[in-house]
Amino acid sequence: MNSKVSPLQKYSRAALAVLLGCALWETAQASEEFLSAKDSDPYRLGWMQGFPPKPEQLLKSADGSFFTFPGLRYSVSHMREFMPTTNVSRGIGAPSPLPKQQDDAIGELEFVPWNATEPMTIFDSLDANYTDGFLVLHNGKIVFEHYAGALAEDKKHAAMSVTKSFTGTLAAMLVAEGRLDEEALVTTYVPELKDSAFGDATVRQLMDMTTGLQYSEDYADPNAEVWEYSAAGSPWPKPDDYKGPEGYFEYLTQVKKHGEHGEAFGYKTINSDALGWVIARATNQSVDELLSEKIWRRLGMEQDAYYQVDSLGTPFAGGGLSAGLRDMGRFGELIRNQGQWQGEQIIPAAAIADIQQGGNPEDFAKAGYDKLTGWSYRNMWWVTHNANGAFAARGVHGQTIYIDPTANMVLVRFASHPVAANGANDPTSLPAYQAIADYLITQSTEE
Amino acid sequence: MNSKVSPLQKYSRAALAVLLGCALWETAQASEEFLSAKDSDPYRLGWMQGFPPKPEQLLKSADGSFFTFPGLRYSVSHMREFMPTTNVSRGIGAPSPLPKQQDDAIGELEFVPWNATEPMTIFDSLDANYTDGFLVLHNGKIVFEHYAGALAEDKKHAAMSVTKSFTGTLAAMLVAEGRLDEEALVTTYVPELKDSAFGDATVRQLMDMTTGLQYSEDYADPNAEVWEYSAAGSPWPKPDDYKGPEGYFEYLTQVKKHGEHGEAFGYKTINSDALGWVIARATNQSVDELLSEKIWRRLGMEQDAYYQVDSLGTPFAGGGLSAGLRDMGRFGELIRNQGQWQGEQIIPAAAIADIQQGGNPEDFAKAGYDKLTGWSYRNMWWVTHNANGAFAARGVHGQTIYIDPTANMVLVRFASHPVAANGANDPTSLPAYQAIADYLITQSTEE
Repeated sequence: MNSKVSPLQKYSRAALAVLLGCALWETAQASEEFLSAKDSDPYRLGWMQGFPPKPEQLLKSADGSFFTFPGLRYSVSHMREFMPTTNVSRGIGAPSPLPKQQDDAIGELEFVPWNATEPMTIFDSLDANYTDGFLVLHNGKIVFEHYAGALAEDKKHAAMSVTKSFTGTLAAMLVAEGRLDEEALVTTYVPELKDSAFGDATVRQLMDMTTGLQYSEDYADPNAEVWEYSAAGSPWPKPDDYKGPEGYFEYLTQVKKHGEHGEAFGYKTINSDALGWVIARATNQSVDELLSEKIWRRLGMEQDAYYQVDSLGTPFAGGGLSAGLRDMGRFGELIRNQGQWQGEQIIPAAAIADIQQGGNPEDFAKAGYDKLTGWSYRNMWWVTHNANGAFAARGVHGQTIYIDPTANMVLVRFASHPVAANGANDPTSLPAYQAIADYLITQSTEE
Repeated sequence: MNSKVSPLQKYSRAALAVLLGCALWETAQASEEFLSAKDSDPYRLGWMQGFPPKPEQLLKSADGSFFTFPGLRYSVSHMREFMPTTNVSRGIGAPSPLPKQQDDAIGELEFVPWNATEPMTIFDSLDANYTDGFLVLHNGKIVFEHYAGALAEDKKHAAMSVTKSFTGTLAAMLVAEGRLDEEALVTTYVPELKDSAFGDATVRQLMDMTTGLQYSEDYADPNAEVWEYSAAGSPWPKPDDYKGPEGYFEYLTQVKKHGEHGEAFGYKTINSDALGWVIARATNQSVDELLSEKIWRRLGMEQDAYYQVDSLGTPFAGGGLSAGLRDMGRFGELIRNQGQWQGEQIIPAAAIADIQQGGNPEDFAKAGYDKLTGWSYRNMWWVTHNANGAFAARGVHGQTIYIDPTANMVLVRFASHPVAANGANDPTSLPAYQAIADYLITQSTEE
């Protein structure tokens, strides 16, 4: 953390985790030296162990320490212990077990990381990426499952910006059901956004993040909008002299325009929060309630999930979800199966088709992701447009749900990589996923 | 809330809910006029509805508004949305359903409230006591179940000081298992308490609250210890000029002695927190982990439970538990069945026998509960010593688990009575429970 910080930055530190789920750090600090996955193991480092924990093993939200590497290796699996949260109920019925047939060969598969010459095994990539949980489903069956860090089969992990894909999926579902008009202006649903940058944007532009917004998440810049956003969304009591907006919603009403809407993809978390607001107004349910009713209660989830909330109780639609690894897998399977779950149509197939077809790669190219050539962004999903038609939910520090329809594969990874930007882990992740997909396709052929 | 408040009081407001679970308000303000249960219905009043909620329907933890009647009718079922919490996992297996055979005659049963001449029905007593959830188990079967307020079968409710009985049960279990020495000094387990009032107290004295402590929960007194305790236990960041103890544990090290240990019952929440600390040191597990491992994972609970935590992550062993109504019923059944659950001995029978036999009624009488004549307190349970041998867990605002072994009855009530002290609801509660027990005994005879 920079030692020269403005008062707003200082205050915002406590809320940084609110943001980290959404940070786009253009420059992956891959050259920095970090403790290895083994050396930064949260049990080994003893975070929050002891009664009370020793000062040097204590993580606190008040000073932001809880979300600084290596402490974040603990806190990603304990978010609710640091901030208020709202429950996403699974209901009270029996969970629907996922069949399991672990295929140990998957760990031994080799792939060549980007910019490397030597191959690496899937097993080795897990630690290279500070993986906390890794799940591979093939035709709906668990073929690989692995836990590390502070995660376990009965614990939850922060999904970071993977949350956005849930928000986008809910919106796409509402569009397909005719409950939300994607061509309508955002202000049709949220009149309070009239004088903001969102005043002349459509719901579809929010859903695809093609809005033109003056909003920087450059943490090195004390004037970046991210600090005010962070302060607004913090669940902690505001200082007496605080004059800024309170809560995500009020912040959104003050966002200024930069450029035109509809011309380029620009990955800005506030689009997801604005979409969460639109969804709440269109359905009279906040995203946590809607996710529970439409998805979580209907898939036989093993665990409840939860969202972190701001000081007004608003769930953080841009990055606040925590959930179990297998439950993320169930959601991925639902998407892979065109919205069907055990024979029931949970999400209209049209909504899934719309995610899968992707957005406009030309709009995407303007955002300058030089490693994600040919990709697009649609309904808050990242679409690779590769030969297999793979698409993914992605969150900082290595969170993903990666769906490969050709390989009938759903892959979920939770991680606590020291570098937030996925540019730091993509080189040992995306080719690994492709190697697993290739292998599973072979297996299908052999079966 | 008093308009003249000290800075510590002001700061502590945010943490008041931390305390209310434990407050002994000697004078029930029964003469005050409150909105009725129907008129204070949280949905009717619209708390936290809307995106964002209107200012007059907003409840916030920062200013303590969330725990002021009538807002508390909402917040008792949404504690986690206002503060950090730690999960008590049920595991991920299928829940074990409680058989149900609703007997509507129970609602029509009549009883005469204390100090009244006219009878009242059980149904009428529910609203009279601002009941949010009411469950009666007879021989392990649900015979009456009722939800109101912000509670539902798939939601959780604050248990307030009923939490203490969980802490006391865990301790009694450890004693019976030989893992905790009830005759040992508290400092055997927690040396840090050497210079506090607890320095020469035994574990047993904590368990039965027969310690002599200088500790007042008189909210009208700005010098009452409760304010410093509240400030210490608050999960919120401390003000820059705060010099007091941080967290429950540090507060306990500073408690002063008043009188002698072992001579009289004195209901002071800090005994439960000290016992929670002893348990953590004896087992190397905090009460949330131990409760999950020993109880929550073993009874086929329908929902996870949770504890609120202080700023160091310490679960509030004196009043911080929230859980589902039926899950509280499962726990009550476990106790009623001498620690057996579906044929398995979950808690040693000796521990339950020790709870049930009660403490010393003479010690209890010195505490001056003039309506609870002949009662005692043992292992943090209230023992009536009535003809049926009933005993109970009790928490402010009307929370209870009431076990009548003669009637084979377990009764659970969650409530949000405007008056914290149970003196305000006992007159329409305790005789109601007796009437239900009498009825169930008749039913057993007829069967």
